[in-house]
Amino acid sequence: MLPIGRTRWAIPEGYIPSGSVSQDRALLSHETACILNAGDRAANIKLTVFFANRDPVTYRITVPARRTLHLRFNDLKDPEPIPLDTDYASVFESDVPIVVQHTRLDSRRAEIALLSTVAYGQD
Amino acid sequence: MLPIGRTRWAIPEGYIPSGSVSQDRALLSHETACILNAGDRAANIKLTVFFANRDPVTYRITVPARRTLHLRFNDLKDPEPIPLDTDYASVFESDVPIVVQHTRLDSRRAEIALLSTVAYGQD
Amino acid sequence: MLPIGRTRWAIPEGYIPSGSVSQDRALLSHETACILNAGDRAANIKLTVFFANRDPVTYRITVPARRTLHLRFNDLKDPEPIPLDTDYASVFESDVPIVVQHTRLDSRRAEIALLSTVAYGQD
Amino acid sequence: MLPIGRTRWAIPEGYIPSGSVSQDRALLSHETACILNAGDRAANIKLTVFFANRDPVTYRITVPARRTLHLRFNDLKDPEPIPLDTDYASVFESDVPIVVQHTRLDSRRAEIALLSTVAYGQD
Repeated sequence: MLPIGRTRWAIPEGYIPSGSVSQDRALLSHETACILNAGDRAANIKLTVFFANRDPVTYRITVPARRTLHLRFNDLKDPEPIPLDTDYASVFESDVPIVVQHTRLDSRRAEIALLSTVAYGQD
Repeated sequence: MLPIGRTRWAIPEGYIPSGSVSQDRALLSHETACILNAGDRAANIKLTVFFANRDPVTYRITVPARRTLHLRFNDLKDPEPIPLDTDYASVFESDVPIVVQHTRLDSRRAEIALLSTVAYGQD
Repeated sequence: MLPIGRTRWAIPEGYIPSGSVSQDRALLSHETACILNAGDRAANIKLTVFFANRDPVTYRITVPARRTLHLRFNDLKDPEPIPLDTDYASVFESDVPIVVQHTRLDSRRAEIALLSTVAYGQD
Repeated sequence: MLPIGRTRWAIPEGYIPSGSVSQDRALLSHETACILNAGDRAANIKLTVFFANRDPVTYRITVPARRTLHLRFNDLKDPEPIPLDTDYASVFESDVPIVVQHTRLDSRRAEIALLSTVAYGQD
C-alpha cells in the first residue's frame, strides 16, 4: 500500500471525566487517540500534551508497521499521568505518515455518550 | 456533476461492541462506513482492515455510479468476519473518487450513543 | 472578511429515523446540514441527494450573505420529501464559498444521541 | 515545535440549549470551541458569530503561547451573550496558526449527549 497519512496531527479537545458509572474497562470514561500506521515501517511518535495554565508534557509512543494502536490517554504514565477533569490538547509528531482519530466515551451518567473526529493533519 | 472525493480514505477508529440491548437491526450496535460515489462510473474498492496484533485482512466492495452504500462492518463475511470487541482500523482504496464517512451506533446500554466523522481522504 | 470555505461539499451519511419519543420540534429526530455563508453575496446552492437503489434527486437552497442556515433534511418538500428510515447521501454545489457541517439528533429512545462532522469540502 | 494549524477556522453548527437537567458546570449544556495554540507567540483571535436573521457579532479572544483554551460560547459576554435556543455559526481569525475543534455537551435530558468535530481550517 502507498503511504497514507500525515506526519503531524493535532487534537484541541481533551478531557478525562473522573466519574464513571461502570468500572468495566470497556465502559469506563476514556479519551482515545486511534492511530493507524498503514505503512511498512514502525512509527516513532512524540506526543505533546498542552494545558490551559501550565507547560506542555511530552510522551513517546511506537506503533508497529501495518498495525493500529487505540491509545487511551488515561493509560499514559511516563513521565506523569494526565490529570482528570482538566482541559488539555495534544499534538502527535511521527517520523512516518500516520492517521489519527479522536474518540471519547463518557460514562459519567448511567448511559454512555460518544464523540469522535478525525484529528487535524499536516506535514 | 464534476467528480468529487478522493481515491483513498482512512478510518483509524473501529470497534464493534458485542452487546446490544435491542436486536432490531436499526438499533443493533454497529460500525458503518458511508460511501458516496457521486460519479458516473462504478467504484471498485479494496478495503484493508488493520488490527493491533495481527496482519491486515482485505475485502472487496463495489458502489454503483451515482449511488451511496452504507456499509456495516458487522456484515463483512468474506474472507472472514471482523471480530467483536476488538480494536481495528480501515483503509479504502478506490479506482474512482469517492467520499467516506464513519459512524458508530452503540446500543450496549438502554439508550443509544452515536459518533461520526468524515474519514481522512488522500489521493 | 476574506472569503472562507469551498464551493462543493459532500455528506455520505444520511438517515432520518421515523421514530421520536418527543414531538417537540427541538427534540424531534432530525438530520441537519448547517451551512455558513460568511461572504458578501448570497449563496445559490444545488443540493443533490443520493440513494442506495434509485436515481438522485435535486433541491435548490439560498443562504443570504453573512448568514447561516441550519437546514433540516426533514423539511425538504420540493420536488419531494426525503423518505424516512432510508440511507441517503448529499452533495452541495454553491456559486460562492460556503462551509457545511452535518449533525443528527436522534430521539428514537427516551434520551437523545448526537453526531456531527464537518463535511468533505472541495472546489 | 514547528507551527501547526491554520489562521482561519469555521464552525457552521452552533446551538446552546436553554435546558439542562444538571446545574453542575461540567454537565451544564454547553457549546465549546477548543483552541490549541502550539506555537511560541500568543494568538490574538477575532471571533465572528453569524446568525440566521441578523447581522454578525464579533468578539476578541487571546490564547497564550503553548496553551489550549476550551472556550464555552455560553461564557461570551462582551459585547453581548449569545442567545439560547438559537441557530448560529462562527469564524475564528487568528494572527498565528491555531487548531480549532467544536464540541457540544447536551444535557437537556437526564443523560448527556456529545458531538465533536475538528472545524474547517483555511489560511
